[in-house]
Amino acid sequence: MVRHAANQSPHCNIYQHAAEQLRTLLNIPPNRAILFTGSATEVWERLLQNCAESESTHFVNGSFSKRFCEFATELGKKTQVFNAPFGEGFDVGQCAVAETSEVICLTHNETSSGVSMPVADIHSFKKNYPSKIVAVDMVSSAPYPDLDWNLVDTAFFSVQKGFGLPAGLGVWVANEACLRKAEALKAKGLYIGTHHSLPSLWKSSLNHETPATPNVLGIYLLGKVAEDMNRIGVAAIRRETEAKAAVLYNFLETSTLYKPTVQNPAHRSQTVVVADVADAPAKIALLKEHGLVIGSGYGTHKETQVRIANFPATTMAQIEQLLHLL
Amino acid sequence: MVRHAANQSPHCNIYQHAAEQLRTLLNIPPNRAILFTGSATEVWERLLQNCAESESTHFVNGSFSKRFCEFATELGKKTQVFNAPFGEGFDVGQCAVAETSEVICLTHNETSSGVSMPVADIHSFKKNYPSKIVAVDMVSSAPYPDLDWNLVDTAFFSVQKGFGLPAGLGVWVANEACLRKAEALKAKGLYIGTHHSLPSLWKSSLNHETPATPNVLGIYLLGKVAEDMNRIGVAAIRRETEAKAAVLYNFLETSTLYKPTVQNPAHRSQTVVVADVADAPAKIALLKEHGLVIGSGYGTHKETQVRIANFPATTMAQIEQLLHLL
Repeated sequence: MVRHAANQSPHCNIYQHAAEQLRTLLNIPPNRAILFTGSATEVWERLLQNCAESESTHFVNGSFSKRFCEFATELGKKTQVFNAPFGEGFDVGQCAVAETSEVICLTHNETSSGVSMPVADIHSFKKNYPSKIVAVDMVSSAPYPDLDWNLVDTAFFSVQKGFGLPAGLGVWVANEACLRKAEALKAKGLYIGTHHSLPSLWKSSLNHETPATPNVLGIYLLGKVAEDMNRIGVAAIRRETEAKAAVLYNFLETSTLYKPTVQNPAHRSQTVVVADVADAPAKIALLKEHGLVIGSGYGTHKETQVRIANFPATTMAQIEQLLHLL
Repeated sequence: MVRHAANQSPHCNIYQHAAEQLRTLLNIPPNRAILFTGSATEVWERLLQNCAESESTHFVNGSFSKRFCEFATELGKKTQVFNAPFGEGFDVGQCAVAETSEVICLTHNETSSGVSMPVADIHSFKKNYPSKIVAVDMVSSAPYPDLDWNLVDTAFFSVQKGFGLPAGLGVWVANEACLRKAEALKAKGLYIGTHHSLPSLWKSSLNHETPATPNVLGIYLLGKVAEDMNRIGVAAIRRETEAKAAVLYNFLETSTLYKPTVQNPAHRSQTVVVADVADAPAKIALLKEHGLVIGSGYGTHKETQVRIANFPATTMAQIEQLLHLL
C-alpha cells in the first residue's frame, strides 16, 4: 500500500509475462531487452539520446517520421535527412547514409500517409552499414512486420494501434550494441537521461522491473493480448492482415470514387490504408452513423483523404461491411 | 482508429474534466498549468531540467528525497543538500538556502520514513526566498496537504497513492515563473526535453491536449475520482485523514509492541504511518491472512518497521480492524 522501490516491485511477474509473450510473438532473441516507457514518443527521445552522440539519419515521408527527426534536432544532433513527397516511399538503394551518422532511423509505417517501408529495405541497411545502429519505428504496424533482429538493432511501438489497448505505454526493444553506445556516451559525460536512460531501463529489466512505477495495468493487458495473439499465431495474424489489406486496396483500385493515395503497391501500408476521396468528412460521417469509425486524412489532407486502420482486431467481416458502405 | 496528432486529440474533454476537478479539489488558481506525464519520477527529471540551470537545493531524509536529489546530479546540476537522519524532519528555520540555488526541492511526505514537512514550513521558503522556485513532491500525500499556491511554484504527485488509481500517470502543477525559467534556459541553448519540456506540455495544455498520446484511461479515472472527492469535499477528506492518523498514532504510542518511528509529532506523516516493531514480516503476514495489506519497512528497515497507508480510500472501520489485529 505504500510506495515501492523499483527493487521491491510486486509487478515483476506481470512484466515477465508480457515480455515473454512479446518475445514469442515477435521472435525477439533472448539477449534483446524489452523495455517499457510512457509512450512511443518518449522512445524517440530516449533512443536518440542514448544511441547518437552527434548525428542521426532520418527517412522522412510524413508527419511522424518528420517529428522523430525534429527530436534529433531538439536534442542538439546533426541530422542527415532523406525526404520523400507525401504518399511516396524511398528507393533505399539510392540513399547513401553519411559516414558520420551513428543511427539510421526508419519508419516502417508512416501513419500520416499510409506509406510503408518494405521489410527487405529495412534489412538492407544493416548489410550495407554494419557498424551503424538501425532503429525502426513500428508504432502503427506491430506485430505485422516480421523483422529479422540480426538486421535491426532497436525497434519500438505503442499499444493503442495494432494491439488495440488503451494508450499510455511504449514498448522498446534494444540490443547490446545500443546499450554499449549509451554507456560510451555516458562515460564521455554526455547526458543520456535519468530513470529512463537505456542503461537504467536495461538494468531493471534483468529483474523484470522498471526504474519508476510504470503503467502496470497497460503491461498486464499487453501480456494478455500478446498471449491471445500467440494462441492464434502471428503467421495467421499476418496472413489475415494481408488478406484484408488486399480486399481494401482492390476496392480502392476499382472504385470510381476512391483511389489509393500510395501509388506504388510495394510501398502501401498493410495496416493503415489511405485513400483519396472527394468530400472525405461526409464519408466519415456516413460511416459513423453505421457504427464504423475511420480516420480523417492527416493535417492538410483532412478534406481529401480517409485513413482506414487495418489492425488485427478488425475482422474481414468489418472490412466487407465498410466497403459495402463506401 | 489511426494515430492522432496532438492537435487532433479526441481526448481533450477527458483532460479538461480531470484538470477542472483537480483545480477545484486542490484549489489551484486558473493561471497554473495542470500537466500529465508518465510518472511522478518523470516529473523529477523534467522539473529539474526545466527549472534549474546550474543548482538546486534538496532536503533529504529518506530514499525518495535522496533519489530526487540524485536526478539533479545526473542532470549535471550542482546540489545543495540538507540531510536529516532517517525518521527525522528539518528545522527549516536553520537551513539557509544558497544564494546561487535556483530551485528549492521539498518532499512533503517522505514515503520511506513516514516523515512529513509541515505545510507551514513549506510555505516559509517563498517568504524567505521569493526569487527562487519552490517545488513540492506530494507524491504520497496529495490531496491531503493544503498548499497555498501563492507560496509554491510547482508541485507534483502520482495517482496510485492518495487517489487509489492504477499506476502510470504523473500530475505536474506549474506556474508561469517555472515556464519563464524553462524558456530562458532554452533560449540559452540548454536542453530542456523534447515532447515533455515544460513549454511543450504547457502549450498543449492550453487546448487540454498532451504532446504525445497519454495514459487516457488514467486521466479519465483521475477525473472521476477527483469529482467524487469534490462531492465529499476536500475539507472532509482532510479531517477524516487526520482523524484516522490520530487513532493510528495513539495506538502506536500506547502499545507495548509498537512505537511510532517518527518521534516529533509535528513531523509525523498523516498519510504514511511508520511504526517500529519486532519481527515486522510476521506481523505483515498475519494481517495478510485477514485480507489487510500493509507495507514493509523501507530498505534496511524491512525487518524492524511496518508502513501503514492512510489514504482517503481507507476507512476508519478498516483502521480499527487493523489495530484490533495488531
